[in-house]
Amino acid sequence: MNLSDTLSKIEAVDAQWIEQARARQLQLTKPTGSLGRLEEIANRMAAIQRTLSPAVARPTIVVFAADHGVCAEGVNPYPQAVTAQMVANYLRGGAGINALARVAGAELEIVDAGVAYEIPQAPGLRRRAIARGTKNFCIGPAMTREEAQAALTLGIEMADRAVAAGCTLLATGEMGIGNTTTASALTAALTGRDAASVLGRGAGADDACMARKRSAVERAMALHGPHISEPLDLLGRLGGFEIGAMCGLYLGAAARRCAVLVDGFIATSAAALAVRFHPAVRDYLFAAHRSTEPGHAPLLDLIGQRPLLDLEMRLGEATGAALAVPVVRAAVEAFTCMATFESAGVAEAAGEAS
Amino acid sequence: MNLSDTLSKIEAVDAQWIEQARARQLQLTKPTGSLGRLEEIANRMAAIQRTLSPAVARPTIVVFAADHGVCAEGVNPYPQAVTAQMVANYLRGGAGINALARVAGAELEIVDAGVAYEIPQAPGLRRRAIARGTKNFCIGPAMTREEAQAALTLGIEMADRAVAAGCTLLATGEMGIGNTTTASALTAALTGRDAASVLGRGAGADDACMARKRSAVERAMALHGPHISEPLDLLGRLGGFEIGAMCGLYLGAAARRCAVLVDGFIATSAAALAVRFHPAVRDYLFAAHRSTEPGHAPLLDLIGQRPLLDLEMRLGEATGAALAVPVVRAAVEAFTCMATFESAGVAEAAGEAS
Repeated sequence: MNLSDTLSKIEAVDAQWIEQARARQLQLTKPTGSLGRLEEIANRMAAIQRTLSPAVARPTIVVFAADHGVCAEGVNPYPQAVTAQMVANYLRGGAGINALARVAGAELEIVDAGVAYEIPQAPGLRRRAIARGTKNFCIGPAMTREEAQAALTLGIEMADRAVAAGCTLLATGEMGIGNTTTASALTAALTGRDAASVLGRGAGADDACMARKRSAVERAMALHGPHISEPLDLLGRLGGFEIGAMCGLYLGAAARRCAVLVDGFIATSAAALAVRFHPAVRDYLFAAHRSTEPGHAPLLDLIGQRPLLDLEMRLGEATGAALAVPVVRAAVEAFTCMATFESAGVAEAAGEAS
Repeated sequence: MNLSDTLSKIEAVDAQWIEQARARQLQLTKPTGSLGRLEEIANRMAAIQRTLSPAVARPTIVVFAADHGVCAEGVNPYPQAVTAQMVANYLRGGAGINALARVAGAELEIVDAGVAYEIPQAPGLRRRAIARGTKNFCIGPAMTREEAQAALTLGIEMADRAVAAGCTLLATGEMGIGNTTTASALTAALTGRDAASVLGRGAGADDACMARKRSAVERAMALHGPHISEPLDLLGRLGGFEIGAMCGLYLGAAARRCAVLVDGFIATSAAALAVRFHPAVRDYLFAAHRSTEPGHAPLLDLIGQRPLLDLEMRLGEATGAALAVPVVRAAVEAFTCMATFESAGVAEAAGEAS
C-alpha cells in the first residue's frame, strides 16, 4: 500500500472490545486485576484483533539500518563504518538482537534502508537502501521529500509483507551510527523541548562529544525549525532512513490491525512521528522498554504508552522489543487459555461480582 | 540432603568470576553496559555456575500449596477450599501459571505441602502434605519444630531432584488462601516493622478484612515475638508449609549452585527467611518482579535484590517468576552467543579500552 491508502485505512480500536475483554478477565481463575499489566496487554490485543481469542503468531522483528550525514559533526564515538559492520554481524548471527530474537522465538528481518558503507554479500539481507546515508542536517535537509516518502513506503511494505505471512505481532528497531543525534533533533522538534533536555550519551559519548551533539541539534533546529509544518517535512529535514522506515512500519501495522512493539529512544521517535501522521496509530503500539536516554520519556507521552520493561538497556537494534515479545505472548496465553471460575469449579471471592 | 548438610555446603559466589564475566562483556559487539541489567544477570549466572559459558537448562518452576490456620480469623475474601480447587486447576492446566510456564518453556511441578481440603486424584501432583494446614498462629505456634524441619526438607528435596535432572534455573511460587497474612507476620518479624506498614490487600481484602488481617498479625507478634530467636522458630511459630518448602528450595538450590527466581511477596518472605539461615543464599537469588504488596520492598532489601520486572502483578503461584525466565535466558544467550569486536571485525569506540 502507498502512504495515503495506508493512512486512510487506520482506525482507532473499538472500546467495546476492550470492555468485552475486561469482562472476560473477571471470569478467569485469578483475583480481579492480579495479572496487572498483562491484562491491559491482552485486552488491547483483543481489541486490535477484534476477537476474544487474540493470538501472537509469527512474531517478526524488523531491524532497519541506515547512516546519518550528521556524523560529519563528530557526534558519535564509533566510526560510521560500524553501521555496515554491525549489519554484517547481524547477518552472521553474532549480535545482541540475534540472541534475543532466538529467545523470543521471533523471526528477524534485516533491512538496509540506507547504509553508507559496503555491506558484504550475505544471505538474508534486504538491500533497500534509499541512498548511501542521509545528508548533514546542520547544512540542509537530511533527505529529499521523495526520499522521505520512499523510507515510509519501505516500512509500510515490510509491515504488509509480515502481516501477509501471518504475523500478528511486529517489533522494530534500528542500527545507525549517529542516530541518537537524529532522534534527539526529531524529539526537540516533536516536543518543543530544547536540545539539552533531550540529549543523552547514546552509545557512550564523552563530554566533548556531547557538546558537539548539542551544537548539531541546536543548529539543525535553528535552520529547519521555521520550515517544519507537517510530519513529512520533519522526517525529510531532520530524520533518517531507518527512522522513516520504522515510522512507515508503524503506519502499515496499524492499517493492517497488527500490534507493534516499539523498541527504545530512536524507535519511539519514529513512533511519535507516526502518531503525527495519524493519532490512532497509538492504539497499535506497545512501548517495549524504558530507555536510559532522557529524550525517551517525552516521546512516550506523545505516543501515550508506558514501557513494559525497565532493564536499563540502551543498545537499540530492537533488543528491548525482542525482550517484550514473551511478555505479550504470556499476556495473550493467560487470557485465552486460563479456565474460568465456573469451568474449573473454583469458588469466587466473597462480595465479588461474578 | 538434610538441612545441616545443605547449610554446610552453601558458599558465596566467587567475585573473581563476576570480574571475568565483566571483562568478557566489554569484548562483545555492543556499547559498554548497553544491555543494562541483562549484563548483571549473565555475570552472576557465570559466577554461580563458575564458567564463562553459563546455561539456562531445564528451567523448572515449583509451586508449593498449603493452607493456613489463620484463615479462621477471616483474613481472606476466598474460602479456604479454594487452595485445593486451585491445585486441581493447576493439574488440569487451567491456571495462570500453566499459561506462563508454557510461554517460558519451563517444567512445572505442583507440590501439596499441606493443603487442608481433599485434592481430587490427578496425575502430576506430588502429595507431600506435612499436615492438613497449619494451626492458627493467633492462638499458638503454626506448626511444630518437626513440621518446620519437614517443610524445609521437602523444599531441599525438590531442589535436589531438579538439579539432578539437569535444571540450572529454578523458580518458585505458592498457592495458599490466607498466606499474605502469614507472609506479613513473617515480614513484621524479619524486618521489625509494625503490622500496618507491611500489610496489603492480597487477593482483594476489603477494609473489614484488612482490619482482621492487621489484628491477626498484631496478636501473633505479641504472642510469639518474645520467643523468636532463630529462623526455625520463626518458621514454626509464624510460617506456612509452602513458605517453609520454598525456603528449603532456596537453601537446596544455593547448596547445589543453582540460580533461583523468587516470585512475589510470599516467595520473598521465604527467601528472606532463607537468608537468615545462611546469608550467602542471596548470591543465588534473582527477584523476578516487584509485587504490589507493601511488605515486598523491605523483604527485597533483606535479600539484597532489585526486581527484574514491574508489571503490577499480584497473583502469586510463581507467575512473576515464570515471566522472568525468558529474561534470564536472554541475558545468558546474549552473553554466550554474541560475537566479540575482534571476531566480528567491528571497530570499537574511540577512547574506549578494548
